[in-house]
Parts: sequence; C-alpha cells; structure tokens
Amino acid sequence: MSYLPLEQSELLNDLTALLRIPSISTLPERRGDVARAAEFVRGQLQAAGLETCRLIEGEGNPLVYGEWLGAPGKPTLLAYGHYDVQPPDPLDEWKSPPFEPEIRGDDIFARGASDDKGQTLILIKAAAGLMKRDGRLPVNVRFLIEGEEEVGGEHISRFIASGSELARADAVVICDTEMFAPELPTICVGLRGIVYGELLVAGAAQDLHSGVYGGAAPNPIQALAEILCALKDRDGRIQIPGFTDRVRPPTPEEYEAWSRLPFDENEYREKEVGARELVGEPGYSVFERTWARPTLEVHGIRGGFTGEGAKTVIPARALAKISMRLVGDQKPAEASAQFQAAVERACPRGVTAEWKAIHSGEPSLIDPANPFIRSSAEAMEQVFGKPTVYIRSGGSIPIVGLFDKHLGIPSVLMGFGLPDDKIHAPNEKLHLPNFFRGIEAIARYFEIVGRG
Amino acid sequence: MSYLPLEQSELLNDLTALLRIPSISTLPERRGDVARAAEFVRGQLQAAGLETCRLIEGEGNPLVYGEWLGAPGKPTLLAYGHYDVQPPDPLDEWKSPPFEPEIRGDDIFARGASDDKGQTLILIKAAAGLMKRDGRLPVNVRFLIEGEEEVGGEHISRFIASGSELARADAVVICDTEMFAPELPTICVGLRGIVYGELLVAGAAQDLHSGVYGGAAPNPIQALAEILCALKDRDGRIQIPGFTDRVRPPTPEEYEAWSRLPFDENEYREKEVGARELVGEPGYSVFERTWARPTLEVHGIRGGFTGEGAKTVIPARALAKISMRLVGDQKPAEASAQFQAAVERACPRGVTAEWKAIHSGEPSLIDPANPFIRSSAEAMEQVFGKPTVYIRSGGSIPIVGLFDKHLGIPSVLMGFGLPDDKIHAPNEKLHLPNFFRGIEAIARYFEIVGRG
Repeated sequence: MSYLPLEQSELLNDLTALLRIPSISTLPERRGDVARAAEFVRGQLQAAGLETCRLIEGEGNPLVYGEWLGAPGKPTLLAYGHYDVQPPDPLDEWKSPPFEPEIRGDDIFARGASDDKGQTLILIKAAAGLMKRDGRLPVNVRFLIEGEEEVGGEHISRFIASGSELARADAVVICDTEMFAPELPTICVGLRGIVYGELLVAGAAQDLHSGVYGGAAPNPIQALAEILCALKDRDGRIQIPGFTDRVRPPTPEEYEAWSRLPFDENEYREKEVGARELVGEPGYSVFERTWARPTLEVHGIRGGFTGEGAKTVIPARALAKISMRLVGDQKPAEASAQFQAAVERACPRGVTAEWKAIHSGEPSLIDPANPFIRSSAEAMEQVFGKPTVYIRSGGSIPIVGLFDKHLGIPSVLMGFGLPDDKIHAPNEKLHLPNFFRGIEAIARYFEIVGRG
Repeated sequence: MSYLPLEQSELLNDLTALLRIPSISTLPERRGDVARAAEFVRGQLQAAGLETCRLIEGEGNPLVYGEWLGAPGKPTLLAYGHYDVQPPDPLDEWKSPPFEPEIRGDDIFARGASDDKGQTLILIKAAAGLMKRDGRLPVNVRFLIEGEEEVGGEHISRFIASGSELARADAVVICDTEMFAPELPTICVGLRGIVYGELLVAGAAQDLHSGVYGGAAPNPIQALAEILCALKDRDGRIQIPGFTDRVRPPTPEEYEAWSRLPFDENEYREKEVGARELVGEPGYSVFERTWARPTLEVHGIRGGFTGEGAKTVIPARALAKISMRLVGDQKPAEASAQFQAAVERACPRGVTAEWKAIHSGEPSLIDPANPFIRSSAEAMEQVFGKPTVYIRSGGSIPIVGLFDKHLGIPSVLMGFGLPDDKIHAPNEKLHLPNFFRGIEAIARYFEIVGRG
C-alpha cells in the first residue's frame, strides 16, 4: 500500500487466519473456536502496537480490548467490530468450504469475510499502518471487539450499560455495513432495530396417526400457518394492532437523496435477490420497504416428519423462528408485547402458542450533520474520489442504539461490504480492493478527526 | 392357549424377535433390516407348516409368500399383513427404546407392535396352531405379507395388478385395524383413501439476510403458510374446488349403528387425543369427521434455520409433507390434480410451488352383508362373547382397494389393535390379551369359513 507501510500479502495472511476459525456464536459446540478467535484478535491489536490489549471476560463470549491514548486534547474514537459469525448452513451450497477461505478473482470467500471479520481487520490494520509509519496515532482510539453480535450481544450490552471507563469516547466508528454500490463511498446513518424469538405451537399430547385422528385432532403446523397469515396479509402488510404507530417516515431530504442513488430495481431483483418478483407493502419503494418500514419475517420453521418418504403423522408441536425489524421510534419491548398479544388473538382453537423473545435491539438514526460523520465522508471521498452518499441499512446493529443511549455518542458507520457479499448466506465474500481501500480510508479518517 | 396347542412364552419370543428388527421402509439406510424382517416372516410361515414359503423379490421390498391349499372345494383366503414399520421419531418421547420391546403390565411396547407386526403374527400363529393341532387347515390359505405398506406398497400393487396365480382367492383377511373399544369385537368395513406428497416452495436464488432484504424479498415459509391457509379455512373446511364433490354420506344404517357405539367425546379428547379441544368441520360428528369426511393434513414442515439461538435469514426454500384422506367415490389422481390446481391459484407472487405426489390409495367400503364378513363377525363373537360392531377406519390400507379392483374380492378387516395403541407415534404398544385372543379368533374364522 502506498499510503501506509503495509504489505498486501501479510494483510491477506492475517485475514485468512482469522477467517479459518469457525467462531459461530450461535452454536454452543463452537465455544472453543469463539475463544480462539478472541485471542487471535487480541494478538492483532497487540501486533498493531496498541496498549493494554486484553480479553474482558464475563458471562458470555469475551470482549477484546486495546487502546492508544497518547494524543491528549484530541478526540477519542471507540472502534467497534465483532469476531463472531453466523452459522454457514446450508453447507452444500458453498462453492468452497465456509472456513477454508478461497480467493477467486478479486474476492475472498468465507463465512465472516464481510460480516464482520474482514471489516474488523480494516479498523485494526488502519491503526497498525499508522503506528508503523508514524510511531503514534493522530487520535486516541479504544478498540472494543465483541463475540456475540450474531446472538444479541448480551456481554457488550452489559459492559456498555455499566458505564465502564474503557468505553469512554467521543464517537464510535464501525465497519459492519456496506457500500451502496462498488466504488461509491457510503455512510450508513440509519439502522433498523430487531426483536427475535421463537414461536412454539403445541397441540395434542403426542404425535397422532393422521388417518385415525385426522379431522378431529388439532394440527400445530396448520395452526402456526394460520397465526403467520393472521399477522401479515398476503400483500406484506403487518396486521399487529398498534405495531406501526411509532414508525416515522423518512425526511424529505432523505427521500431526495435516495432518489439520486444509482439503482435499477430489475437488476436488484434479478441479480441480488434472485427472485421472479419482489414483494412487500404496496405503495412503498424498495428503499422504504427495506430501510424505513418494519418487517415481520419467519427465519425457520420445523415440525413433524420431513425426512425422505412418507410418514402420516399429526405432530404434537411446531416451531418457528421469527423476527420483527423496527424503525423510527418503535421500542423492542413494546413490539414484542404487541406481537405476543396478536399471536394470542390469532391462535386457533385446540392449540397453544408460546412466544419466547431471544434478543432485541433498538432502531437508530444518526444526524448526517454531525462533525464525526462529516469527517468520515471526507475520508471516504479522498480514497474513492467521489462524493459520499448517505443511506440507511435494513439490518440491525443493536449496539449502535446502546452507544447512543448509554454513552450519548454517535456511531459512524463506514462500510466496505458490497451488496452482493451474501452475508448470512452461502458463499459470503469480501471484495479485496475494498479491504485495502477501507484500511486507507479508516487511516485517513483517524487523521482527519485528529486534525480537529 | 386352551383352544390351540401354542405356548404363550413361545409366541412372545417370536413376537419380540420380530419387533426387534427396525424394518423402517421409509428410510433407505434400513434396507438391510427390512430384508431381515422379510426373512424372519418367511421362517415363521415355514415353521407354521405352510408350503412353498418364499420371498417374492422385485423392485422394492420383498413380498413374503406361503400357502396351504390342501382343502379342495373349500374357499381360499388370502391372509395379508405387513412387516415394515413407521419411523420411530421423535425418539426422546419413547419410555423404552422403540426396537427393544418391553412388556409393561398387559402391553408390549415397540414400534410395529400393533401396526402391523403383532397383528401379522396373529394371522400366522392361527395357522400354526391349527396345523399343529390338526395337521391341516380347514380352508385354503395363501399368505402374502408385504414390506412397503408404510411407503405406498408399490411392489404388492404391481404384483396384484399382474394377475398372479399366487393371489387367487375368494376373500382377503387382514389384521391391521383396531377394536372400537377393549373387549368389543369389531369389524372395519370402510377405509379412507389417501394422496401423500411434498409441496416445495422456492423464493430467492439463495438464503438472504433478513435485515438487508426483508420487506422486498419473498419468504417461502410465509408463502407456504399462505398456501396452507388458502387450502383449508380456520374451521377445517377444505377449500379445494371440486374436492368434496364425490364424497358420499354414510347410509342411514351406518348412522344408526354409530349412534350405538360406546363413545365419550370428552374422554376421547382428553385421553386419546390429549388436546384441549377437538377441531374439524362444523356440523359433523367425530365419527363422520374421522371416518366419512376427507382431510387435508400437514405432516411435516421444514425451512430455514431452526437450530438453537438466532439466525436472521430469509430462506430460499421451504417444504411441507401433506396428505389428503379420501372417502366415498373420490379418486386419488383427481384429488391430487385438484390439490395441485388449488396450490397454483393460492401461490403468492415471488415464489413457485411444486407439488410432488409420493403415493396414493383408493378409499374402500365393504358390504357388511357379505358372507365372509358375517363369518368373521361370528368368529369374533365366539371369542369375545359379545355382538360384533361394524365401524369404519379413518386410516388408509390402499391394498384393500386394489384387492377389490384387480381380484374382485372383499377384504375382511378383523382388527385387534386398541384405540390407545399409539400407532405411528411414540410408545406404540399391543395389548397382549388381544394378541392371544386374536390368534384364537382367526383360527375360529378359518374353521367357520371352512365349514362352508
């Protein structure tokens, strides 16, 4: 790299080593790998020249901490990322194994390449490059890298809520989002919140023969289908009373900015989504539907016999994993309660339906006029040579809401993923030119913030 | 046994040995066990003193054949049973392992105890007892025991349709149904037909992140739920156009007979079904709903992430196993086509839905006035000391329709199962007094038919 004294081959070695660790936080049997990934990240912070690099243990997966506070009078940035990843299934759809990183063309393919190991390393390597070049950083930086982002981030939530000195900063910088399009510098100023849980429907005391009891016994799968259909109509309108009351529409400035984004809906449908037709609430654009409207999605469903062949059973139970994405002023606890009440009303006779919330996060919106945001836009423009666009993301990074709530500081979401990175899906990848340019952009951001 | 020179301990030894073989026809990996069960049954026929005992190999699982044709001028009975069983899952709900038979009280617990290994042995042991006592049988008997009843019975269907000499008989006798209540001799004169298949719903080209794409991408689980709800309303009324056109109501005689059956709906709901409420079409009794009305039931559903914790995915596909039970003059091929057409109409935009029929069977009704039926009623009354009741079963034994269609002969369904046998469910059992009395009842039936 010309801007920083870093070798691409060494950067790739470190990226590959981190991607090899199957640190899937949702699977209890991967606890050892999660610990290995934490230790690897700690080593990276140490090697970058940061100080007091250590694991913060507690209930759950360790936080990784490192700091450089040698710029008195300058702002302090809290650099956040996560070293845990989503499960890789369905495994048979991966072209190369999810934990054996493979470079094909300009991309590196592995689970976590984009979300968020690659982007976490961008933050660390930016500091490493500046330290190597200058022997110091232009700003104060604290790194706080967690290992539970994909399972609700309980540990870091408690840590932030506890008011620890180690989280004291003027702004957060996060690389965990994507650029709107290749080569288009992008800052994300809005995230949806989330409530995620399980809905368990129970009928008879045990599985029953569908010939003998079919016509009299309740069927929990059918009942679950009825509940799902009662909660959302065929056009995608959520039918939970009160649910959308706190939804705030985007500002006129946002509508105007979004209208200028390069976007071909047909290409998006065909190449990104890969579906014959897009769906969702009538009367809203794709940007509104995915960034500024709440959703209700079933992530998984299970019940009865689904093996090869035939089994004529009426199952005793059926289960669905469900989330709601929240926007505007929606509150996770309130949304969860509204959902539960709607489920109770929709539950057919003969069965019971039990809702168990697993995790949640507040939606968040950041003011584009904030000076830390403006500095990041400047850094991005220097590296990519184009004006930075402001977008929202439909995804949820609940920690952003907590930084706002408990620390009162803005989060700067500088994303280097691309729309076709397939995060959470088979064949996740990271565009390597973005990896290298991301490192430079973050280094420049540190310099601009340090310039004051 | 006083009526036949058979030792209970030896009968139990043979029953236990057969129940130990996990001959699950729906699981390809159990093919070896299926073959072992076939060979065991062949050995039982041989030991009973029958002739030309052999396996009839062909595409699929072997048929087991044995005959005794030494009574010229007497009728010939075709004794049918099956040695294959349903899968035992969910395994963790079994009190003792499904293939380690355990006697508790008067019952033997194992997969297949009632359906249909125990009842198949009743037929064989009746012949064995008579042969041992008399050195001959009072009627001609051909045994034809199949190994694919739980997966559609393709092999025996082809065999029967081929017009083989080995199936030539005057009537069929089958032990694969249940007594209406303990101690109440019962003959089943009606069976529902079935169409069983898989419905596969496909959306995007791959799993998608629900944050990024939620609100725009189609969700196949939601779509599958919408299809299921379009096909059957919340009251259990099937909404497939034309589907019920060929349904025939029971005769006034049947209604009258059913009204005299000992039946407590609340006890049935609580002890047999184990549900808080019974469901099904308004305006029909439980007997009508389970014996004389068609059903549409989901047996299993699968899609997306259902492991521990949370994964925020919009899955690319979802699958359901579905059957329709048919009554009266409904035709499986027509019902399947009507289903498929209704699915096409109900399929939401953005997804495709593909129906794949796996197996089917015709419904059947047998005239209670048939002399072979009257003889069986007489045999049952002699053993149980009560008038025999005529009922229907909601289950499907497709082979009965084929015996009628291709051989033109009636099937006599003498069942020795009990309503709480939990066939197709965890903790399946057979009531041992019924096993022993069933052997005697079948032996007496052979004698009464042979008496002419």
